[in-house]
Amino acid sequence: MSDSPASATLRGPSPDGDKSFLADFDAMSAFGATAGGGIERHAGSPEDAAVRDWLTSWLVERGFRVELDAVGNLYGLYELVPGAPYIGIGSHLDSQPLGGRYDGAYGVLAAAHAADRIRRHVDANGADGVEFNLAVIDWFNEEGARFGPSMMGSAVATGKLASEAAHATRDTEGRTVREALEETGYLGDSDAPRFAAYAEIHVEQGRRLEDMGITIGLVESTWAADKREVVITGAQSHTGSTIIADRRDALAAAARLIVAARVYAETHQSEPAVHVSVSELYVLPNSPVVVPREVRMNLDVRSSSASAVAEAIKSLTEEAARIATADRVDIALRRTHAWGRQPYPEAGVELARDAASALGLTHVQMQTIAGHDSTNMNDIVPTVMLFVPSVEGIAHNESEYTHPQDCLDGVDLLTEVVARLAHGESASR
Amino acid sequence: MSDSPASATLRGPSPDGDKSFLADFDAMSAFGATAGGGIERHAGSPEDAAVRDWLTSWLVERGFRVELDAVGNLYGLYELVPGAPYIGIGSHLDSQPLGGRYDGAYGVLAAAHAADRIRRHVDANGADGVEFNLAVIDWFNEEGARFGPSMMGSAVATGKLASEAAHATRDTEGRTVREALEETGYLGDSDAPRFAAYAEIHVEQGRRLEDMGITIGLVESTWAADKREVVITGAQSHTGSTIIADRRDALAAAARLIVAARVYAETHQSEPAVHVSVSELYVLPNSPVVVPREVRMNLDVRSSSASAVAEAIKSLTEEAARIATADRVDIALRRTHAWGRQPYPEAGVELARDAASALGLTHVQMQTIAGHDSTNMNDIVPTVMLFVPSVEGIAHNESEYTHPQDCLDGVDLLTEVVARLAHGESASR
Repeated sequence: MSDSPASATLRGPSPDGDKSFLADFDAMSAFGATAGGGIERHAGSPEDAAVRDWLTSWLVERGFRVELDAVGNLYGLYELVPGAPYIGIGSHLDSQPLGGRYDGAYGVLAAAHAADRIRRHVDANGADGVEFNLAVIDWFNEEGARFGPSMMGSAVATGKLASEAAHATRDTEGRTVREALEETGYLGDSDAPRFAAYAEIHVEQGRRLEDMGITIGLVESTWAADKREVVITGAQSHTGSTIIADRRDALAAAARLIVAARVYAETHQSEPAVHVSVSELYVLPNSPVVVPREVRMNLDVRSSSASAVAEAIKSLTEEAARIATADRVDIALRRTHAWGRQPYPEAGVELARDAASALGLTHVQMQTIAGHDSTNMNDIVPTVMLFVPSVEGIAHNESEYTHPQDCLDGVDLLTEVVARLAHGESASR
Repeated sequence: MSDSPASATLRGPSPDGDKSFLADFDAMSAFGATAGGGIERHAGSPEDAAVRDWLTSWLVERGFRVELDAVGNLYGLYELVPGAPYIGIGSHLDSQPLGGRYDGAYGVLAAAHAADRIRRHVDANGADGVEFNLAVIDWFNEEGARFGPSMMGSAVATGKLASEAAHATRDTEGRTVREALEETGYLGDSDAPRFAAYAEIHVEQGRRLEDMGITIGLVESTWAADKREVVITGAQSHTGSTIIADRRDALAAAARLIVAARVYAETHQSEPAVHVSVSELYVLPNSPVVVPREVRMNLDVRSSSASAVAEAIKSLTEEAARIATADRVDIALRRTHAWGRQPYPEAGVELARDAASALGLTHVQMQTIAGHDSTNMNDIVPTVMLFVPSVEGIAHNESEYTHPQDCLDGVDLLTEVVARLAHGESASR
C-alpha cells in the first residue's frame, strides 16, 4: 500500500511496486489450465464457475459486495459515495478453446486490483473529491465460443440483447445459456449498477505495441465488423460414382468461397486493411462417401473503414452468387452481428494519455481490431479502452503472453485512470 | 410360383410375373424411413437391427437357417445338396445418412427372392443337376458412414480385415462396432459358409443405363480407388486482430486443397475420367473467432485407370506441399483404403450375358465406379456383378429411385444367374 501523498499529477494512489497482482494472476490461471500453458474456460462451464468463485472470494474478503444479473454478469461493488453511480471496470474470464491466459482475464484481475488500491487509498486518505463508486465486472460470455454471439453479457447489460434471447441460446450439445447459468450457480436477479463511466484494459492481440516498443495503447476506435452465417445448399450424391458434372457439392462451393475470401484479404492489406476469416464450418452429412448436401459456416469481415467492410461484403456476396451458379448450389449470407467503426470519446483518450504521462509510461493512440465488452459499454457511457503489449501478437492461442512488467504497468495505469474517473474527470466527448 | 418347365435356355424357374417382391420391398423400406422418402439405417443402429429382424423372419418362414458371424454378417442358408459349398448372393441393408431405399437393400431382397424362387422350383421339380447350396447375405456395414472403412463385413469375411480390428473401430461418439453389434443382438459366432461363387445385384448409382435405355449392366471391372486422410496443421489465432500475413490458417489451406482437387477432376473428365472428392471435414477448434489450428478431411480419388489414380494422388500431393509452404501449415496425406482396377471374371460376365439374353433383357457391359461387397468377394471366389438402372443416377440421396419393372427384371436375372451357378456353370476366368 502506498503512503505517499498524491502527487500534483496523480489523482489515485501512486505506484507502489506491489507484485501481488502477479501471484494472483498465476493463482487465477490455474482454473481451466491446459497442458499447453493456456486455459480453456468456456462460458458457463465448471471451469468458468470455479474461477468466478475464486474472484468472488477475493472481492468479498476485501469488502466488495458481489451481485449477479440475469445473464450472469458478475459485479463486485464498492461504495465510496453512498447512492452515487458507479465507474465500471471490467473484462471477461471466459476463454476460447485452448485459449490464452491473458485475454480478458488480465483485464478482470487488473480491474479488481485497481479498485482495491483505490479503496485502500480512500480508507487511508479519505474520500475527499471522490464522486463515484466502483464496480469490478466479469462480463459473461465475451468470447462467444460456446454460445453465440460474442460479448453477450455486456450486450444484455447495455440493452442490445434481451436476456430471454440470451437465455434461449444453445450450445452445439443443445444446452441453453439459462441451463448453464443455473447449473453453475451464476443465474442472478440483480440489475446492473447505474454507470457513470467505464474503463477496460486488455492485451493488444496484435503486435503493434511490441513492434514499436511502447507500453500502453490508448484505444481511439474499434474496427468495423460484419459477421455472416453462410449456408450453402447442394445435393447429396455418391462420391465415387456421380460424374463430376452432375454434382452439386456444397463443400466444393464452400471451399471456393473460403479461398475467395482469403484472397480478398490478401489483396486488401494496404490501409484500410481488410481482415476476412472463415473459422467455423459444419458439413452435412459429413460422410466419407457422400457428396455434401449442405455446409454452414461463418464469414467474418473487419476493417478500420466501415465502407471497406461494406465493399468486401458486396464483393464476396457477388462472388458467392457466381460460385452458386457455376456449382449449381444455393448460397445464403445472413448477417448475424455487425458494428460500424466506433470512436471512443476523445476526452477519455486524453484522460488516459495524461494519466500515462504522469506515470511515465510510453503510449500511443491506436485502434482495436477485435471487439471488446467496452465496445458495448461505449454506446451508453463515456468509456476508456487501454491496451498492454502482447508478445508477437499471439491471441486465442495457448502461447499468448504478456511480460510481467507490462502487466504491472497496465494495472498502475488502470488504477490512475479509474481514480481520475471516480474523482469526476470527464471522459465524455 | 412357376409351374412351367425349364426352357432350353433357362436353368432356373422362368419369370412368373410375381409382384410380391415389390410389396416386400415397400415393407422393408419402412425401417428407418425418412420424411424425404429415403432411409437412414446406420450400421449397428436400432433401425439396421429392425430391418435385419424383418429379413430374418422372412427367411426363417421360408425354411432358411439364419446364422451370424463375428462381425455381424447375416447368412440365410438353404441346403439343396447336403455338405456342398454355397453360392453367396447378397448386398447390404445399412445406408448413408438420409440415403436412398435401393442402395444395397434392393440387392439383399433380390437375393432373398431369387434364392426362394430356386428353393420352390427345386421343391416342385427336384434337385436334379444342382451342385451347390444357397446363402442369402446381408453384409454388415457396407457404407462405412458410421464406422470406417466401408465394406467392413465382407472385408472380414474374406480375410482382409481382422474381426478384432473391426470390433475396435469407434463411431464419432466413441461407441465400438463390437458394442453396437452386442447391443443390437447381431454379434454372432458362426463362420462364414464355404463359398463356390458369389453374385450381387445393385442399382447403378450412375445414369449410363438410363441414358442408353438398357435394363441390365454386366459389370466387367471395378474402378481403382485411393482414399486418404488429410491432416492440415496450422496455428490458432484471433480471427479479428491477427494480420493476414501472420496467420497459419488450417481451413484456408484446406479450402485451397479442396478447390485444387475439384479443379483436377474437372480437367480430367475425358477417358480415363478421374473422380476426386472431399466430403468429410472437421475443424479445430471450430469457433467463430479463432483461426483454425487443424483440419482433418478425407480425399477420395477414383478412376477406371489405376495409373490415372496414382497420377492424381501425385499431383495433389505436390499441390498440397505448395499450399503448405505458402500458407505456413503442415499437410499430411495418409492412405486409409485403396484398391486397383479389378476385373470380374469374364466367364461370369458371359454367364450373365447368356442369362439376360435368355430372358430377353437388354444389357451392356460396363464398369462400377463405386466399390461393392462383391469387390471383396471377387478376390476369393468367381463373382458376378449386375446393375439395374438408377433414375438420373441419383445415389446416396433420399431421391434415389429405380422403376418397379427394372427391379423385377433384375430379380428375374439374378434368379437365373444364381440357378446357373447352382447348377455348376462356371463363372471363373
